[in-house]
Amino acid sequence: MSARPPFPVFDPLSAAFAAARRAGMAGEVPVGAVVVRDGRILATAHNRPRGLKDPTAHAEILAIREACRILGDERLTGCDLYVTLEPCPMCAGAISFARIRRLYFGAYDAKGGGVEHGPRVFNQPTCHHAPEVYGGFREDEAAALLRDFFRERRDA
Amino acid sequence: MSARPPFPVFDPLSAAFAAARRAGMAGEVPVGAVVVRDGRILATAHNRPRGLKDPTAHAEILAIREACRILGDERLTGCDLYVTLEPCPMCAGAISFARIRRLYFGAYDAKGGGVEHGPRVFNQPTCHHAPEVYGGFREDEAAALLRDFFRERRDA
Repeated sequence: MSARPPFPVFDPLSAAFAAARRAGMAGEVPVGAVVVRDGRILATAHNRPRGLKDPTAHAEILAIREACRILGDERLTGCDLYVTLEPCPMCAGAISFARIRRLYFGAYDAKGGGVEHGPRVFNQPTCHHAPEVYGGFREDEAAALLRDFFRERRDA
Repeated sequence: MSARPPFPVFDPLSAAFAAARRAGMAGEVPVGAVVVRDGRILATAHNRPRGLKDPTAHAEILAIREACRILGDERLTGCDLYVTLEPCPMCAGAISFARIRRLYFGAYDAKGGGVEHGPRVFNQPTCHHAPEVYGGFREDEAAALLRDFFRERRDA
């Protein structure tokens, strides 16, 4: 008898991690993001600035744009975003404009993060919508994913 | 004899204003942006979040993405961006990632700007590339464009 349940468990963070690993396999910095609404995954994306030759093609931006396309709405009211890394200032801005309800992220990013570091976009009085923020999920795994990616590229 | 030269003057800021007026006519907040390289306009865009149902479809993001598509490069090294309004934090982040050389903008935006207000994205130690920034060009015209747009919508 398996200890695992015989059905897929709803685990958007694992889906975000799987997307991050796909990014790494494609030579992109391994970050993945998932938009969830009503207990279902609406959109999944990974980091693709190199592949798309688009500096805005971060996982969060692509997942938000895809979710908006699916819903036919520029606002994702009631939707939550799961991402493997603390979003940068650009993505934090997009999360605010999209009216994301809750943000869950993996590793903190002291070098490039814009939520708990640097400009702390959601904490500014000029930020008109801030999601609830929960950080540090599976932090070691998220950090290892990035560390291994950069180590491999450096040694290659 | 006309005091005007008999040929089109290269004036990217006027092109950005024309794009902003097109946005207003389409019911979008009137902001326009132009990417310039080597004295030529590479890409022009206006604000389109409503039309595209995409919260990231600010003029700057669309102009940067279009310029990257044209150049086949995720970096716009040596390119300058002209925009009618101080960019928001999301767009400031995109400007940094795109390696824009110089940013010229019209009106300052105390409510939503992310360059001279709020998170001041380029002034953070976590910002890895900051353009040269020049603000306040044709500020009255840029501010009037926005004021008239919101007044018309309020009165409608």
